[in-house]
Amino acid sequence: MVDYEFFDLGDFSLQRGVTLRDAKLAYKTYGTLNADKSNVIVYPTWYSGQHYDNEWLVGEGMALDPKNYFIIIPNMLGNGLSTSPSNNPQPYNKSRFPNVTFYDNVRAQHKLVTEKFGIEKIALVVGWSMGAGQTYQWGISYPEMVERIFPFCGSAKTSFHNIVFLEGVKAALQADAAWKGGWYDEPPTTGLRAVGRVYAGWGLSQAFYREKVYLQMGYSSLEDFLVAFWEGFFLKKDANNLLTMLWTWQNGDISQTPGFDGDFEKALGAIKAKAIVMPAEMDLYFPPEDNEYEVKYMPNAELRVIKSVWGHFAGGGVNAVDTKFIDDSIKELLAS
Amino acid sequence: MVDYEFFDLGDFSLQRGVTLRDAKLAYKTYGTLNADKSNVIVYPTWYSGQHYDNEWLVGEGMALDPKNYFIIIPNMLGNGLSTSPSNNPQPYNKSRFPNVTFYDNVRAQHKLVTEKFGIEKIALVVGWSMGAGQTYQWGISYPEMVERIFPFCGSAKTSFHNIVFLEGVKAALQADAAWKGGWYDEPPTTGLRAVGRVYAGWGLSQAFYREKVYLQMGYSSLEDFLVAFWEGFFLKKDANNLLTMLWTWQNGDISQTPGFDGDFEKALGAIKAKAIVMPAEMDLYFPPEDNEYEVKYMPNAELRVIKSVWGHFAGGGVNAVDTKFIDDSIKELLAS
Repeated sequence: MVDYEFFDLGDFSLQRGVTLRDAKLAYKTYGTLNADKSNVIVYPTWYSGQHYDNEWLVGEGMALDPKNYFIIIPNMLGNGLSTSPSNNPQPYNKSRFPNVTFYDNVRAQHKLVTEKFGIEKIALVVGWSMGAGQTYQWGISYPEMVERIFPFCGSAKTSFHNIVFLEGVKAALQADAAWKGGWYDEPPTTGLRAVGRVYAGWGLSQAFYREKVYLQMGYSSLEDFLVAFWEGFFLKKDANNLLTMLWTWQNGDISQTPGFDGDFEKALGAIKAKAIVMPAEMDLYFPPEDNEYEVKYMPNAELRVIKSVWGHFAGGGVNAVDTKFIDDSIKELLAS
Repeated sequence: MVDYEFFDLGDFSLQRGVTLRDAKLAYKTYGTLNADKSNVIVYPTWYSGQHYDNEWLVGEGMALDPKNYFIIIPNMLGNGLSTSPSNNPQPYNKSRFPNVTFYDNVRAQHKLVTEKFGIEKIALVVGWSMGAGQTYQWGISYPEMVERIFPFCGSAKTSFHNIVFLEGVKAALQADAAWKGGWYDEPPTTGLRAVGRVYAGWGLSQAFYREKVYLQMGYSSLEDFLVAFWEGFFLKKDANNLLTMLWTWQNGDISQTPGFDGDFEKALGAIKAKAIVMPAEMDLYFPPEDNEYEVKYMPNAELRVIKSVWGHFAGGGVNAVDTKFIDDSIKELLAS
């Protein structure tokens, strides 16, 4: 039994030209929409994450408390639950799955929010990593609708270094001949394992490994962490789905929203929502410097840095201290 | 015509047990050994580098001036010129090439220095990256012989994070079925290209890419830099050689020198040489923090950081400002 629902997007035209026919947005909601529909939080997913992977930030007594808020977690296109290379019928299946942008994802989510629920205002959009990318996109695509945004460990425009990091991930996957240009029937497990090993150095910080924090996580050695956590993580994923989301990530750029013509500073300036932008100090692919730059151009934003050795995973919900810091800051933003 | 010479190591027993029979150390010298043999500098090579790749730091008016010093550049075992998987006869060829440590490399170099040249004192050992690893090893293997060391962008013990970064490099290479467990006849070019793409994010810093410094280097775009520089770089290398040196790197640890039994602080304390230890501020796999720790335990060492956006490549001889900073510091060390 699935614990989530589907919204029919119908024939959904993408920013880069292709139409996804009979597209579906998988989502889950938490809590109850109040009478004046003023208690809405949208919380998009991250790279290969599915809605349940977001649930660590939802709960009683937390900022995202279902007693107070109606929380919608939409699954990103390509994540294996919403329309994806792995579940779309031919001809746009597997390697033929089209390029999807954050703009497309947010337009799909907007259809869900407005057409399914009749919502006109969103109290908060919040997201980690690629979820942060969608969060910024909400701020620029629907500035009159979004009251607050809380992007953490992400960026409004994917940096060149981040693009290069992802090139390494992609190349490791595609080096496996079993990938077959995407036309595999059996998963390219060697490539997926290689992705795990490439990712392992990037996802956490130098200090995380120096302090052997993986032992606290229950792994018995560095190699155990690499196999049990990292290889295991990516072996569960579909290679084409990973590549679709990777393209979305690499091409993240709010200034590609219609009307901004690549003017990044102008696009940042158009985000009206009250914002806390929260990088993690030691994040190796979303370093705070890129967010510092953004916040200078955002009219209503504060930069607040997570001090942590967890690198990008400071925002992953895997350690209580960082989770509390994030949650407290969201509470503050919601109260403002 | 080759521009370097070979020293016969004979049957050379390695720290981990195997004997390399009829082993050769390729080396090149610059300048003239003076009468009292007091002007010797040893300058080991880096990961996949060969002696000519070190020459940017040698020249008239520089610290390593052949008019003043007798400079020996020994090629690391496994680098394709000294005995390596690619040139060793069977049975210890290709995938059967044994594991080589920094300790082994330095013992081989010591034989060259003493048996070939009758040298008893070394004014300076200097090296970048894995060359730095060998530099520390000289300091601990032959403390009475080495007067000064200048390891830059390297470490005395390879950090866990660095090991993980290299796991990603290795996995990307080995994901290519053409690698054939090392028994290839044709090079695994897909894997070598993937190594280039994985390495690209690590070798430079986030700021390097943010500032598009690759354009100053003569590359016309990010993709041009990835293909022309990074893929091109690794396509020239032999996969088994890369894996041999990668093992050496991952297992870098001066406290595995006989007599220290894994006691890293004790080993650091045994390095008598006057030292300047020089990390680069934004080096992603040899971050300054690891060197800070080392210097605390080294009796005669100063930490001096290269301020640069070039990351690890601050020490690669590719930009004049960092090269001058390094060269000036070596001059200072030699004069002290």
